[in-house]
Amino acid sequence: MKKNVLAGQSGGPTAAINASLYGVLEEGTRRSGQVGQVYGMCNGIEGFLKDSIVSLSETLSPRQREILRVTPGAYLGSCRYQLPADLSDPVYPAIFEKLEALSVGYFCYIGGNDSMDTVSKLSAYGSRQGSSIRFVGIPKTIDNDLVCTDHTPGYGSAAKYVASSVREIGLDCAVYRQPAVTIVEIMGRHAGWLTAAGALARKYPGDNPMLICLPEQVFDLEAFGRRLEQALQERPDVVVCVSEGIADAEGRFLCEYGSDAGVDTFGHKMLAGCGKVLEQFVRSRFGIKARSVELNICQRCSGLAASRTDLEEAALAGSFGLSQALEGVTEAMAAFQRTGSSPYEIRCTMEDVSRICNQEKKFPAEWITDGGMDIAEEFLSYALPLIQGEVQRPMENGLPLYLYR
Amino acid sequence: MKKNVLAGQSGGPTAAINASLYGVLEEGTRRSGQVGQVYGMCNGIEGFLKDSIVSLSETLSPRQREILRVTPGAYLGSCRYQLPADLSDPVYPAIFEKLEALSVGYFCYIGGNDSMDTVSKLSAYGSRQGSSIRFVGIPKTIDNDLVCTDHTPGYGSAAKYVASSVREIGLDCAVYRQPAVTIVEIMGRHAGWLTAAGALARKYPGDNPMLICLPEQVFDLEAFGRRLEQALQERPDVVVCVSEGIADAEGRFLCEYGSDAGVDTFGHKMLAGCGKVLEQFVRSRFGIKARSVELNICQRCSGLAASRTDLEEAALAGSFGLSQALEGVTEAMAAFQRTGSSPYEIRCTMEDVSRICNQEKKFPAEWITDGGMDIAEEFLSYALPLIQGEVQRPMENGLPLYLYR
Repeated sequence: MKKNVLAGQSGGPTAAINASLYGVLEEGTRRSGQVGQVYGMCNGIEGFLKDSIVSLSETLSPRQREILRVTPGAYLGSCRYQLPADLSDPVYPAIFEKLEALSVGYFCYIGGNDSMDTVSKLSAYGSRQGSSIRFVGIPKTIDNDLVCTDHTPGYGSAAKYVASSVREIGLDCAVYRQPAVTIVEIMGRHAGWLTAAGALARKYPGDNPMLICLPEQVFDLEAFGRRLEQALQERPDVVVCVSEGIADAEGRFLCEYGSDAGVDTFGHKMLAGCGKVLEQFVRSRFGIKARSVELNICQRCSGLAASRTDLEEAALAGSFGLSQALEGVTEAMAAFQRTGSSPYEIRCTMEDVSRICNQEKKFPAEWITDGGMDIAEEFLSYALPLIQGEVQRPMENGLPLYLYR
Repeated sequence: MKKNVLAGQSGGPTAAINASLYGVLEEGTRRSGQVGQVYGMCNGIEGFLKDSIVSLSETLSPRQREILRVTPGAYLGSCRYQLPADLSDPVYPAIFEKLEALSVGYFCYIGGNDSMDTVSKLSAYGSRQGSSIRFVGIPKTIDNDLVCTDHTPGYGSAAKYVASSVREIGLDCAVYRQPAVTIVEIMGRHAGWLTAAGALARKYPGDNPMLICLPEQVFDLEAFGRRLEQALQERPDVVVCVSEGIADAEGRFLCEYGSDAGVDTFGHKMLAGCGKVLEQFVRSRFGIKARSVELNICQRCSGLAASRTDLEEAALAGSFGLSQALEGVTEAMAAFQRTGSSPYEIRCTMEDVSRICNQEKKFPAEWITDGGMDIAEEFLSYALPLIQGEVQRPMENGLPLYLYR
């Protein structure tokens, strides 16, 4: 009897996570000689435990699959659920009972670090039990912080959104002659890959963003002030990109500087992002116009600047992951190795998921320049191939047509 | 001797203001039998007073003009400069001396309310002096708040950006099952047209945004809390759109509620948008996850969701305005009258600029429904034609190619 595929999505939404689901679904359909249904678990492993399952292969038409491919978010819904470290926990037999009942042979989990941890634990439990179910991870994160892979699906589209937006913010800032500083706060609590993408926005030498600060580097407010003063001598309209997670030498997050402020009308501590804190700093230090722009969740969930390369690779990771599971591979994550730079070329490999799940790939220290205020050229060569190509999205009534569950 | 055209841009940047400049430039080029140069004043009338002028007709190639058309921001730079009410102020003869020296016959000023005030005053002064210079205004504002015109160039693209982003934020919010409220803060201090565009994001009955609050309606925090409670009973992932300028019955802006908080690390009052204030309110009242997203300057300066209709109409307003000036019209603004709804059709007229410059077109009270928490269907019929069509932008290395001065 043919075994079924069970796919899930976990962690934060991205512009490309549904492209990976599309990849799994298409591969499952192509391999109908070996594969029965392709099921989706709704809201990840947490939903699966509540029997929240949908058959993707039976319900989605070819047209709907194509829309799924370009729909941002997470079509199946997501969860933030960590399996217990203790493999003798009763949740494990409960999951495996449900997997057996559904005749699942191939388990594909699309997500970041925490999701790979789920794959790792289920693989370990399964192998102890002599289960024949294959568990594979499909990488997904705008943070680009997974090890053992050149980059992660979702990063290219988020980087393209950030670079486009920072370029456009630069155009906005350029219209007045008065000195002004605009702080762009970009996602990334521990890894600066996405903030670094601000550097792609530059069009000519001396173009904005003038400063780029990542969480991998200690943030010194005084040094920042001095460097900003220099930047303001070069041009009146200074744009700065900062990671949400920048912290000082004592490890104190910049965004915590604001919380000294006291309580708001409702009796709660004011919570401000580091952009807001730096905006206030600029106003206080230089007495000039300052504003902050938090790119916020749009940078991870918008399809407006989706990268064709990213969506194609995301689908590839999904189909490759399932194809490898069908070959018997388990406890592994689909990964990209860069085999060529010009032209850009990757090949897929499967990497040990237990090596991946508890590590973070930091932005390389040697690519951080200008005393922690800028990014090296090498990063541009690394990132540019990932943002290439536009995605033709189906439109309806002037707006993108997306797939809803 | 042929007279020259002088074009300027003023007020906040938009995705379409350069399309209007393109329209002026193209019309000037087409009418080379009557028109000499098309000059641009850099940073509006303020820059003109400092002789900051560029010849557009001599410097921009056809390819560059096409890029100009789709470049957001304000290519010539902008200003916020109000001419004195007293027409005997020495600034007037100074301006006219410069205009005569440059052999300007046609003055085209692209902007919003304040810019139309400039056109009105220069026209009035000119007519007193018996000047033959023709002064016309070309409308521009994402706020859509100019009277005597069906809508304003720049609004359609901003509305499309808002609607796309709110739809995508809705997808992002839908991935988890936990109750959570996301407040989207949209530009509009006095007029709610842009916030209302959030309603275009809905894909099915009961879809997000669940509540939409405009500044034309008194904002009652208690009523908002009650309505939000109902919304949370309908779905766990509630998205709310609010104008930055919502205010209570005492006329106190919601964003001022936050400033009771005290001072920040740098000794300044904390400044928070109304989204942040409502986020804290939700957390405090319901004890659930809450976040706020300020669409910020990207909603006015991004080309990512530019509307083809908007950019075409913006160019039309520019070319029509200059063509009318060439016919002898002065002291007037190019305007759109809607002559058909299905199919959508407009015709251009010239309207008395002095009637326009000191008025604001509010969002119609009869289109505000649900006790000030939603928008009527009539608005959708009004706004949908304005967001139709995509703009093919030239790309370079994965990012939009824009024109820099």
